[in-house]
Amino acid sequence: MRTPKGLFIVLEGPDKSGKSTQARLLVAKLRALGNDVLHTREPGGTSFAEEVRRILLSNDYQVHPVAELLLYEASRAQHTEERLRPALAAGKVVVCERYTLSTTVYQGHARRLDLKLVASANKIATGGLTPDLTFVLDLPESEFGARDAGRVHDRLENEPADFRRRVREGYRKAKGRGIVRLDGRMPVAEIQARMLALLEPLTKSKLRTKLSTK
Amino acid sequence: MRTPKGLFIVLEGPDKSGKSTQARLLVAKLRALGNDVLHTREPGGTSFAEEVRRILLSNDYQVHPVAELLLYEASRAQHTEERLRPALAAGKVVVCERYTLSTTVYQGHARRLDLKLVASANKIATGGLTPDLTFVLDLPESEFGARDAGRVHDRLENEPADFRRRVREGYRKAKGRGIVRLDGRMPVAEIQARMLALLEPLTKSKLRTKLSTK
Repeated sequence: MRTPKGLFIVLEGPDKSGKSTQARLLVAKLRALGNDVLHTREPGGTSFAEEVRRILLSNDYQVHPVAELLLYEASRAQHTEERLRPALAAGKVVVCERYTLSTTVYQGHARRLDLKLVASANKIATGGLTPDLTFVLDLPESEFGARDAGRVHDRLENEPADFRRRVREGYRKAKGRGIVRLDGRMPVAEIQARMLALLEPLTKSKLRTKLSTK
Repeated sequence: MRTPKGLFIVLEGPDKSGKSTQARLLVAKLRALGNDVLHTREPGGTSFAEEVRRILLSNDYQVHPVAELLLYEASRAQHTEERLRPALAAGKVVVCERYTLSTTVYQGHARRLDLKLVASANKIATGGLTPDLTFVLDLPESEFGARDAGRVHDRLENEPADFRRRVREGYRKAKGRGIVRLDGRMPVAEIQARMLALLEPLTKSKLRTKLSTK
């Protein structure tokens, strides 16, 4: 069940890989070219999502990995139906930070849940809605310490280094239709230029105005 | 992945069909006979489950049916891993009010979600843990009004009569290993006697002490 109109772009990568910065730049560029753009991120900032997030980040109880998976998927289902599908059906460009690949990587590769089980949960939550293009911002393990200084840690961030290593490996193994990896250590402008170049083949059919990377 | 030891008994049926009364009587009887019994109900009363329940019962936002399904399954996963599996692994008798059949009936038949999708979600949440016996307390539509008087209604109960009719139909269609339907309009003692009689074939292998229905 794909939503036929619109263009669905996802940005993925470990925490602090630069997703939000790149998403902001991309959205500004697409809007400047006259496109109607929805910029969103999972879990999406709805009241529903905030309540679920509160459960996930609580330190009061040990959330079982499968329960954690299903909470993420509940948030995703709500966000997909409430925000993504209506925007795409209206022909908008959707730029979304994190989507199903995050769950494959964090709950599958890093938390070691069965990958088929995660794929099955992803499909239930999204009804099979797949991005046209997923940019993965890749970051080596050694980068985390530097970008991590001075932050307050919640439960999800209190993971050992081994967990972060598996996250990175999970992103490195990611493959599938429309998944493109970019080195997150490149200069911000360089990453942005590559993203725009990769988007260009889609512009004739999907975007109202042609992209220009010049 | 079945948990090999213990005996797993589930009570199902529409709201106010008498599940809690029958569960209490059954637990008392099994304990009087010397069995170690866990009496529980979904979502299970843990802090985690209470938080999820708060989201489900909120009137503040429209929860999408698939998001609702996944929240129920998250609670189920937590309850299954935290309570059911440890008790069964320890050889206990588990008497649980509501389990996967509730989701098949409420989210599948009544909320009209695809039954295969619901079955898939049930399997993710439980890891395939299946009751030895599921008693379904059947109640005709006409009974609801009478038992419903004077109660405060939350979001889940503000459903139209048609929803309740589909719940009842869903329970009537329920089939599978170990599912037994009983007429919820029979006297309490009569229902209890039938449940004990139906449990008897399992007692030789599973219960420490033989049941006696005399």
